[in-house]
Amino acid sequence: MLENSYYSQDVHGPFELHDIGNLELEEGGTLRGCKLAVATQGRLNAAKDNAILIPTWYSGTNKIIEQVLIGPGRALDPDKYFILIVNQIGGGLSTSPHNTPAPGGMAHFPRVRIGDDVRAQHRLVTQTLGLESLALVVGGSMGAQQTYEWAVRYPEMVKRAAPIAGTARNTEHDALFGEMLVEAITSDPGFAKGFYRSSDDVREGLLRHARMWAVMGWSTEFFQAKRYRTLGFSSVDDFILNFMFAYFRVMDPNDLLCMAWKWMRGDVSRMTGGDLRTALGRIKAKTFVIPMSSDMFFPPADCQAEWRLIPDSEFRPVETNDGHLALFGADPGAIAQIDRHLNELLATEVS
Amino acid sequence: MLENSYYSQDVHGPFELHDIGNLELEEGGTLRGCKLAVATQGRLNAAKDNAILIPTWYSGTNKIIEQVLIGPGRALDPDKYFILIVNQIGGGLSTSPHNTPAPGGMAHFPRVRIGDDVRAQHRLVTQTLGLESLALVVGGSMGAQQTYEWAVRYPEMVKRAAPIAGTARNTEHDALFGEMLVEAITSDPGFAKGFYRSSDDVREGLLRHARMWAVMGWSTEFFQAKRYRTLGFSSVDDFILNFMFAYFRVMDPNDLLCMAWKWMRGDVSRMTGGDLRTALGRIKAKTFVIPMSSDMFFPPADCQAEWRLIPDSEFRPVETNDGHLALFGADPGAIAQIDRHLNELLATEVS
Repeated sequence: MLENSYYSQDVHGPFELHDIGNLELEEGGTLRGCKLAVATQGRLNAAKDNAILIPTWYSGTNKIIEQVLIGPGRALDPDKYFILIVNQIGGGLSTSPHNTPAPGGMAHFPRVRIGDDVRAQHRLVTQTLGLESLALVVGGSMGAQQTYEWAVRYPEMVKRAAPIAGTARNTEHDALFGEMLVEAITSDPGFAKGFYRSSDDVREGLLRHARMWAVMGWSTEFFQAKRYRTLGFSSVDDFILNFMFAYFRVMDPNDLLCMAWKWMRGDVSRMTGGDLRTALGRIKAKTFVIPMSSDMFFPPADCQAEWRLIPDSEFRPVETNDGHLALFGADPGAIAQIDRHLNELLATEVS
Repeated sequence: MLENSYYSQDVHGPFELHDIGNLELEEGGTLRGCKLAVATQGRLNAAKDNAILIPTWYSGTNKIIEQVLIGPGRALDPDKYFILIVNQIGGGLSTSPHNTPAPGGMAHFPRVRIGDDVRAQHRLVTQTLGLESLALVVGGSMGAQQTYEWAVRYPEMVKRAAPIAGTARNTEHDALFGEMLVEAITSDPGFAKGFYRSSDDVREGLLRHARMWAVMGWSTEFFQAKRYRTLGFSSVDDFILNFMFAYFRVMDPNDLLCMAWKWMRGDVSRMTGGDLRTALGRIKAKTFVIPMSSDMFFPPADCQAEWRLIPDSEFRPVETNDGHLALFGADPGAIAQIDRHLNELLATEVS
């Protein structure tokens, strides 16, 4: 267990911690007294049919989703919907390597899969909140992975699904990128096999990790247009240090690695013996598949190949030069397109 | 100085070593008795107007260029042309960190720029070979950088130019990728600040470097299509180990770093005070700009932006799923397209 003031109500709150009990994991471990950090907005209506669930992405928490995607007059409108953002396991706010006591914490934290997150979230929304359906599950990147997992695992419950910039089964290319990120961190001698004293000990690894995110997370168009200047940075070096590294350096390396392990192995076809067509064929949700046009590791073509296997679905790419990290919301045009797609999706009648 | 049997006549020959004398470098160092490793095919005609110069790319030597691009009946036909492939400085066959005696070798090898290579090559072809013009300069990747440097620096001499999968001024995104590669190697404790005993000491770093090349060098389409299977590898892991790592592990880390430093800083506008338009405007060669459609770090859009600034030029993208590493020649369709473009270029009349 490691103190880390980044993962706090001050920085990410308000959120509530829900203890969902022991969670037995697909890989054999158990999270004892698993806690999910949940931020909510709006109110559940009497019919209990206006709930929207948003799982979080790699390194992201409820906070950025609130800032980028939610608001009155937006598609995700708290005046109309009961919106739950559930922070993923390992994300730092829910049960994670850094906040789990020895001997089960730090590098001894067990392997967690996307399916574990979704089973945990299902337990939360059905048992704690008594929900029987979700009007929409929407998430970006690893949030898209969880969205797909929800739609395949609980098809009756998910009425609409909007996986943004993510896939149902991780590609081999994407997994290689994940491995690069993992190695950036673990190769730092300061990582000390996961038993460092503070994130600062892993400074070099986190900086390498930040640089890789700069290369793959944005796009060649982003750099061609010097978009980092628009974002307030005078040069690439300034941007790498004061945006990318500033963002990651405060995070817990084991937490990042826990998420990366999950991300690299996201695969809904684990539920159908490896048959992706059958898995995606189970989906009953009206689904909008929403990739980012310039995404370098969840590219539109990979998302499109999956979209073809989803019964009631539409392919809705977002045009942007910000690549995968358009999720950060720095391109207002991309966010407007997402809003438009989500508005249309929420307006569709479902049974 | 380090023995390394990879950089030998057995593996890359036949080639000849030409001593071009002392080369003073742009960054202030001097290569004393600079040697260029040159492979030639065909014969110079009486008019001395059939010479084709091919500079090499990062980690590549004359050998792969011979295998992939040259042959009777091909565009680069030794029955018609006198073809010189000049191995770049730092590439392992020409003067390089690993083959330079102490104290100037290994990590003390001076900084070399693309412009230094091209001045060295110019000295070779004018003074040693007595050439006054080049019918064509063609090269891929760092070979494209040298091609652009030739066309801007010696516009009267270069009649035709074909930069393939490379740019005249390196982009900021591309330089970040280069920095990732550098860090993959230098962060290995076995690198020992560049004074390792053998490439094996830097095994981990070279493996990380190989994986990054797998992620950025091919393309998402390459992995979607499982192209590595067509190439004879059973899985991604098999491919990473027995192709990508097998390729890089025998190379000298300081040699790779010497090339990476050059690559990241390639910029013809250094000759015109940073003005790229003026630099490219100097080009008199009939120029075909030939990017690979799925290239992740020399993407068509970046090449196209430069193409617009070159007076007598055509934009000739190659359709391929092999990304930047289509240069390896594993996609016969891509190679056929390059051949066609080069045939057309060589058929154009020039003054």
